[in-house]
Amino acid sequence: MPRLKLTVEYDGTNYVGWQVQPNGVSIQARLMDAVEKLLGERVPVEAAGRTDAGVHATGQVVCFTTGRVLPLKAYWMGLNSLLPEDIAVVRAEEVPADFDPRRWSRGKRYRYRVSNAPSRSPLLRATHWEVFAPLDVDALRRGAAHLVGRHDFSSFRASDCQAAHAVREVRRVDIQGESRGVLSFTVEGTAFLKHMVRNLVGSLVEVGKGRRSPDWVAEVLAARDRKRAGPTAPAHGLVLEEVFYGEGPPPRSPGGTADGGDEE
Amino acid sequence: MPRLKLTVEYDGTNYVGWQVQPNGVSIQARLMDAVEKLLGERVPVEAAGRTDAGVHATGQVVCFTTGRVLPLKAYWMGLNSLLPEDIAVVRAEEVPADFDPRRWSRGKRYRYRVSNAPSRSPLLRATHWEVFAPLDVDALRRGAAHLVGRHDFSSFRASDCQAAHAVREVRRVDIQGESRGVLSFTVEGTAFLKHMVRNLVGSLVEVGKGRRSPDWVAEVLAARDRKRAGPTAPAHGLVLEEVFYGEGPPPRSPGGTADGGDEE
Repeated sequence: MPRLKLTVEYDGTNYVGWQVQPNGVSIQARLMDAVEKLLGERVPVEAAGRTDAGVHATGQVVCFTTGRVLPLKAYWMGLNSLLPEDIAVVRAEEVPADFDPRRWSRGKRYRYRVSNAPSRSPLLRATHWEVFAPLDVDALRRGAAHLVGRHDFSSFRASDCQAAHAVREVRRVDIQGESRGVLSFTVEGTAFLKHMVRNLVGSLVEVGKGRRSPDWVAEVLAARDRKRAGPTAPAHGLVLEEVFYGEGPPPRSPGGTADGGDEE
Repeated sequence: MPRLKLTVEYDGTNYVGWQVQPNGVSIQARLMDAVEKLLGERVPVEAAGRTDAGVHATGQVVCFTTGRVLPLKAYWMGLNSLLPEDIAVVRAEEVPADFDPRRWSRGKRYRYRVSNAPSRSPLLRATHWEVFAPLDVDALRRGAAHLVGRHDFSSFRASDCQAAHAVREVRRVDIQGESRGVLSFTVEGTAFLKHMVRNLVGSLVEVGKGRRSPDWVAEVLAARDRKRAGPTAPAHGLVLEEVFYGEGPPPRSPGGTADGGDEE
């Protein structure tokens, strides 16, 4: 019974998110359909992170176990031929039978992109948050520096976040200027609370606009109160880029692993 | 009667191209509609280059003359509020009454992007040509070097190209590797023949795949025969990025200016 680990890219525009929902088509459902067509069996398909409606991925990790033994290339190419054009398998690998894409994860890297030009951009509209007011990149970086480290991120979790506690470690928040006014936020951490990256970016943009000082980010963090943070940045600017693994599950440490709230 | 020069961005996916056509909606028609709604008059709207169906732009230049005098910002923001989400005005400037966006152009810069990964990419599919076979970037660059300079580009023009002659000057063809296997071709020249950039890229990709040597590009160029070049690269990888102008129309020189074939 091989267990397969797929690295999956998707354009989340037309989906209700990763997880099967009653109100629309999910990426999980499309993958289960493709697996069923390829292998002739309906099996559970699990992901490293439950991305929200509109969120994209270039490195989502998805797993399933099957009784059908095929060459790795046949899973990869076979699924790609059965998936719609907005979902693709980038890579297929075999993993141990007990590999759990969420619990074995040692961290994730997200990218959030903002188009900071004075008018809207037709070519960036599906993948960038369009912020027309000019952003101060130095202020953004000074604000972001407060977020790096192990903190209680209660102020940046969604009100319906299911995680048992809110301590998480953010390894880095880098902000790069790109061409045509694009700002690219790279956020890497051990695990994330629901909407955490979008809430961090939404608050930093308040700082970039000059409405708040960079040190306000530290105050919000210390308050542990969701009502203190800025607005949630829109979903379509976010991409799950990579999920990190080591040998076996990570050693247990408070906040070091996902605990059910890992949902962007 | 102010004459307006608009810098326009568009996602060409859903259009038959720049020019009004009987078989579908054009970007020109959408702009004429928006200008008519804003200004209450139907006036001709002309562009620097007639981009083909599926071709995108971040710096197309579009002009019209109107009897309605408004602040520049009102043309810009007014048109943006009336245009569909896949077309936007980036900038509005006033230009001399005889400014001709095509004849006054001193050059253009196009970008062509290839996704050179082993499998298809949902997030790049609308803006990148997906070439699965690995491309040799050094070979691409050696092939591209043959194209720079003033040449007769007959081998790289579309069979229905209307230009009076095929001498054009290519100022540069740069090929940059970006993240995730993306190759970005920057092609700058005084003027272009119909499908010229797409034919250059299509031929270079033959070289990158190892099917042809870099020196084959020089042979094709010397042959002045369309049948010798590689296939035309697909439209959706192409973006018109910038149109260059100086003070007044450029001095007359053979092949130095557009002469009716400037259509990508």
